Amino acid sequence: MVSMATVKEVGERKLVDNIRNIIRPRSGNTVIGPGDDAAVLKGCTDGTVVISTDVVTKARHFPEGMTFERFGWTAAAVNFSDIVSMGARPLGFLPAVTIPEDEDESSLYDIMSGIDQCCEFCKCDVVGGDTKFGELAVAGTAFGTMEGRRPMTRRGAQPGDIVAVTGTLGDAAAGYFAIKNGLEADDQIFKLMVPVPHMEDGIKLAETGVVHSCMDLSDGLANAACTICQMSRVGMEIEWEFLPVDDETRNILEYCHCDLKDTITRWGGEYELLFTFDKSDIKKLYEAGIAFSIIGVVNNSDEPYLSDGDSRTVMKDGIY
Amino acid sequence: MVSMATVKEVGERKLVDNIRNIIRPRSGNTVIGPGDDAAVLKGCTDGTVVISTDVVTKARHFPEGMTFERFGWTAAAVNFSDIVSMGARPLGFLPAVTIPEDEDESSLYDIMSGIDQCCEFCKCDVVGGDTKFGELAVAGTAFGTMEGRRPMTRRGAQPGDIVAVTGTLGDAAAGYFAIKNGLEADDQIFKLMVPVPHMEDGIKLAETGVVHSCMDLSDGLANAACTICQMSRVGMEIEWEFLPVDDETRNILEYCHCDLKDTITRWGGEYELLFTFDKSDIKKLYEAGIAFSIIGVVNNSDEPYLSDGDSRTVMKDGIY
Repeated sequence: MVSMATVKEVGERKLVDNIRNIIRPRSGNTVIGPGDDAAVLKGCTDGTVVISTDVVTKARHFPEGMTFERFGWTAAAVNFSDIVSMGARPLGFLPAVTIPEDEDESSLYDIMSGIDQCCEFCKCDVVGGDTKFGELAVAGTAFGTMEGRRPMTRRGAQPGDIVAVTGTLGDAAAGYFAIKNGLEADDQIFKLMVPVPHMEDGIKLAETGVVHSCMDLSDGLANAACTICQMSRVGMEIEWEFLPVDDETRNILEYCHCDLKDTITRWGGEYELLFTFDKSDIKKLYEAGIAFSIIGVVNNSDEPYLSDGDSRTVMKDGIY
Repeated sequence: MVSMATVKEVGERKLVDNIRNIIRPRSGNTVIGPGDDAAVLKGCTDGTVVISTDVVTKARHFPEGMTFERFGWTAAAVNFSDIVSMGARPLGFLPAVTIPEDEDESSLYDIMSGIDQCCEFCKCDVVGGDTKFGELAVAGTAFGTMEGRRPMTRRGAQPGDIVAVTGTLGDAAAGYFAIKNGLEADDQIFKLMVPVPHMEDGIKLAETGVVHSCMDLSDGLANAACTICQMSRVGMEIEWEFLPVDDETRNILEYCHCDLKDTITRWGGEYELLFTFDKSDIKKLYEAGIAFSIIGVVNNSDEPYLSDGDSRTVMKDGIY
């Protein structure tokens, strides 16, 4: 959409009307959508609602190469990731956008389009929202329902549990360093810019009923491991050699002189799921068709350790 | 709470811990509250969730005399008002707060305390939230459930309906002008600073099952009347003499040389409910114990008119 008008020139009400013309509910769950005081959704079949809110700001979530569309996608994705990592099925999303008065109106449409695409990916709708003038930020709220599944939390890890992770680690970090160093790395850069909420994995994991604890890696593996250990009052032994790292990702990080262990374990912006379960239940997870890597075990200590042959260090909870 | 530390000095994680120590779920509906990836609530007994998000910003919602605590209350109240005006019972609230790095930490606790008090008033919990650095704003999300009631929307007004409103009009405006002119007017100023979501009225109105359309007056009577007329494709005839205006409020507005009609009909920041119903159902509303004033009728035209003896003018949709 080509436009030279600022959001202030277009005016709040006209903007909202324009947005409503691009974004319409598709799922059958939205009984009353945007345009009324509030949205009404059906679909909480077991009486539960699962809900999360997170703010993404231009200052913090707009790296070089980011577009407004991807910024919108990210704002929705980080929130969906929080509810699907509990095993919820998404029902809808509400973006509260603050945008500078002198920003081009097309920026707002691009943000909303990115949000809508992520909602379509999660098979649900933008059901409401708000726009006010201010520094660029999207405070998003994602909500869904458990459909009878037991929510997976950070609290249930038990000594003896296997520690596992979906997907691969370090790709978003490699994307960031590839951009910084002018390397071509489409896959890694895409993973950095377009984080994917692992909806199907989350639902399947919860459906098995055998997962003791689960959370996403939005703040990095070390943060997730520390959080589960603290909340579950357990420790972990993670094997460095077991961590699933793509060869190209490893090459990029080495080329960019990154400390490999630090980058793989402490970099945020990844949305893979870390989870634990009793080893006797592993067959149920395989049968559910979930692809994962075993990376360690839960024990009776109170911290997660990373082991690599001779060396063994406490995993530090900290975000780059 | 006396404190000289800025939110940046205290640090994001410590702030969150401190907030969690002041704010704890009280209602029995919160299965998993703050501290996990997402909150899980039960209580959507009929499978519905009703949800709304609105941003309040310091630039727009912090008049002279406002405190951080009242700002927090307001951020929650405007969102609860949107869901209760449909007839929903609140289940929870999530504040996404952006706050300047150099703001005193006590400001954040005061905002959260105001939010929590409003949640307590609405018999539900702060169930999650997020805090990031940025210009002061609260993007709040309120959600609830219909409990089997039919949602009251802006779309169902029918020619012949009676138009009614709860409470009195113009008090918030009078509060604003009282402050501007140095007048003492505690009641009016309190109504401006501490907007009250009309939860019990909203639930009772929806319970009668006879309300055809309903919305709150957050953007003023004229805006609400215009919106219902536009969405329901009807007109209205509102009688100026029927509008419920408190004597003291009228005195303040006259003393401050306000245009009485313009101020009473176009001033926002009031949270009374405007609703319409078939006149044959009026007994059901009285029996439900709802206090309201009849202010006009719905007709076949396509705009709301305000009549005052000889004069008759179209109500203009516009906010001060």
